[in-house]
Amino acid sequence: MVCFSPLLPNFVKLITMAANSPSLPRIAITNGDPRGVGLELVIRALSAAPASAHWTIVAPPALLEQNLRRIPGKCPKILAFSDANRSKSGVSLLSVAQEIKIPPDDSWDEQTSAQVALSSLNTAVDYTYNGDFDAVVTAPVAKSTIRKILHHFTGQTGYIAERCGIPSATMLFWRPELSLALVTQHLPLSAVSSALTVQLIEETTQALCQMLQTLGKESPRLAILALNPHAGEEGSLGVEEREIISPAIAILQSKGVNVSGPFPADSFLARLKPGDYDGITAMYHDQGLIFFKRLGPSVNLTWGLPFVRTSPDHGPAFELAGSGSADPTSTKMALQLAVQLVSLKRGRK
Amino acid sequence: MVCFSPLLPNFVKLITMAANSPSLPRIAITNGDPRGVGLELVIRALSAAPASAHWTIVAPPALLEQNLRRIPGKCPKILAFSDANRSKSGVSLLSVAQEIKIPPDDSWDEQTSAQVALSSLNTAVDYTYNGDFDAVVTAPVAKSTIRKILHHFTGQTGYIAERCGIPSATMLFWRPELSLALVTQHLPLSAVSSALTVQLIEETTQALCQMLQTLGKESPRLAILALNPHAGEEGSLGVEEREIISPAIAILQSKGVNVSGPFPADSFLARLKPGDYDGITAMYHDQGLIFFKRLGPSVNLTWGLPFVRTSPDHGPAFELAGSGSADPTSTKMALQLAVQLVSLKRGRK
Repeated sequence: MVCFSPLLPNFVKLITMAANSPSLPRIAITNGDPRGVGLELVIRALSAAPASAHWTIVAPPALLEQNLRRIPGKCPKILAFSDANRSKSGVSLLSVAQEIKIPPDDSWDEQTSAQVALSSLNTAVDYTYNGDFDAVVTAPVAKSTIRKILHHFTGQTGYIAERCGIPSATMLFWRPELSLALVTQHLPLSAVSSALTVQLIEETTQALCQMLQTLGKESPRLAILALNPHAGEEGSLGVEEREIISPAIAILQSKGVNVSGPFPADSFLARLKPGDYDGITAMYHDQGLIFFKRLGPSVNLTWGLPFVRTSPDHGPAFELAGSGSADPTSTKMALQLAVQLVSLKRGRK
Repeated sequence: MVCFSPLLPNFVKLITMAANSPSLPRIAITNGDPRGVGLELVIRALSAAPASAHWTIVAPPALLEQNLRRIPGKCPKILAFSDANRSKSGVSLLSVAQEIKIPPDDSWDEQTSAQVALSSLNTAVDYTYNGDFDAVVTAPVAKSTIRKILHHFTGQTGYIAERCGIPSATMLFWRPELSLALVTQHLPLSAVSSALTVQLIEETTQALCQMLQTLGKESPRLAILALNPHAGEEGSLGVEEREIISPAIAILQSKGVNVSGPFPADSFLARLKPGDYDGITAMYHDQGLIFFKRLGPSVNLTWGLPFVRTSPDHGPAFELAGSGSADPTSTKMALQLAVQLVSLKRGRK
């Protein structure tokens, strides 16, 4: 068994083998915040991943080496993967920020952390945009850290869309039995109402519908949540249902989308059982995610880009880095969903 | 077995026995919206209630009779309760709106429905305020119906407080393992931010604390949710955490309340396990209730009144009325919690 760790220089030379075997999905993976759990979860997830793709980690060599050393016990299978197999599947390293060294005591400053996160993200996105990969799986970053060097950074979803010249992309969350779309995302709660438009609700729900159709649901059953308590109670607790959400639902229905609502969020979600609906459109971040995150791990994905992008649904969890106690489930799901979406999108062409 | 139903005239004459036996809690129960499931659930709940109180249903005789007839199969125990036992416990009827007849085909108009709901509520509250009862348990009403005759009606919580001359009362939700307080209640989402004040958050959390202390938690562990996604992310997604919620937490802590936060609602609630906290303060209706209602049935209670008031946590559910399929669990819990709170409050005096 070939175990990587003292052999970093050789490993670094491995360049993505993706282009050599276009029949397998070619997936780029970013390192996320170097202080977080992102890269170690990627390695743990890849060590159990089915040989269904060419995986390319886009990271500084020193950071990958540090994270490989963090995996206790068995050596991840990804490192035992031999040259001979790489035409079928395997893991490569696309090296970025090669000058980066691991700071003593892991005391990363925020400036360096932001640079390392962005180097990986920019490279992965640019290569993928140029056709070298089919999908990007992003490890979590700390938004407030990246804002130290990029003041208007609101999250990877918006950043990737902007870098690809897409005016807006939709943030979706996927679980096997139910998916979620957020009409607004990282906004102060007081700004949510004025950000809602008929068009935005329609586009968000269409994105959710298309994603579910790509995954094989011909006419997904969709529900749209109200903004206000009790769905505005006939206008006495808010007019957005009447003026914005219901008109958006009418337009979607006229276009053949199987959608209903607006439903009072608390009572509707309290009664919701698996299988009732395939997808939910929520008006704002906490409305959707307070419910959805309690269902279990999920995948965050961006719809509307020229390629597939998925991500685990959690933050960098600095306090767990190196402890081995972070849960790789969401990262595994993000890797698998990227492979599945690439394969299904190819099949539809 | 004495089964009530053809003997309504005699039954109507039964006046609350509460005052005769002050050692047992004296509980008034309203009928709620006459088109809803409220009264039939009360009867089903009382038929299984422990003989721990004097129960007095405040309702029009015809409405009680109609609901008694709806209970299929066995006659509820409450009706078999004999005169001889009533000094210990039992069910009485305090008759209101005696002229009310059940409309043909149950086709209540909204005006009459509102009048019947308010007659019961007003009488129960006034008798309790005057010391004839220790607690009021309210069946659900339809706010939009009551607004046909009372334009500024925002819910029973505010209405009862106003009728008692209390400037504000706090809406709490109770389950055995966890309770919830709402800082704002029936407000459009766009009005939530401007309604938040340090004082309101402090008072709401103090009410939650006092309720839990009454129930035997000496120093309840309380958590306060943030308003904005990711708790405002250091101010970039909203300033209410920094300017309003954190100062309120500091004041509460300085007064010895065992409270922490503000926590990002989605990730905090996703990780929350039974036993982590005794109570949660949420900033707005859906934030608290999207989470809380999925835990199972709960009791809605009003804190800050001169008496105990509880209620089931659901609406009148017109579509289930008379079907026998509505779930009486929350009504049972509301009746039991009223008894428990009255007993414990007496014990503290």
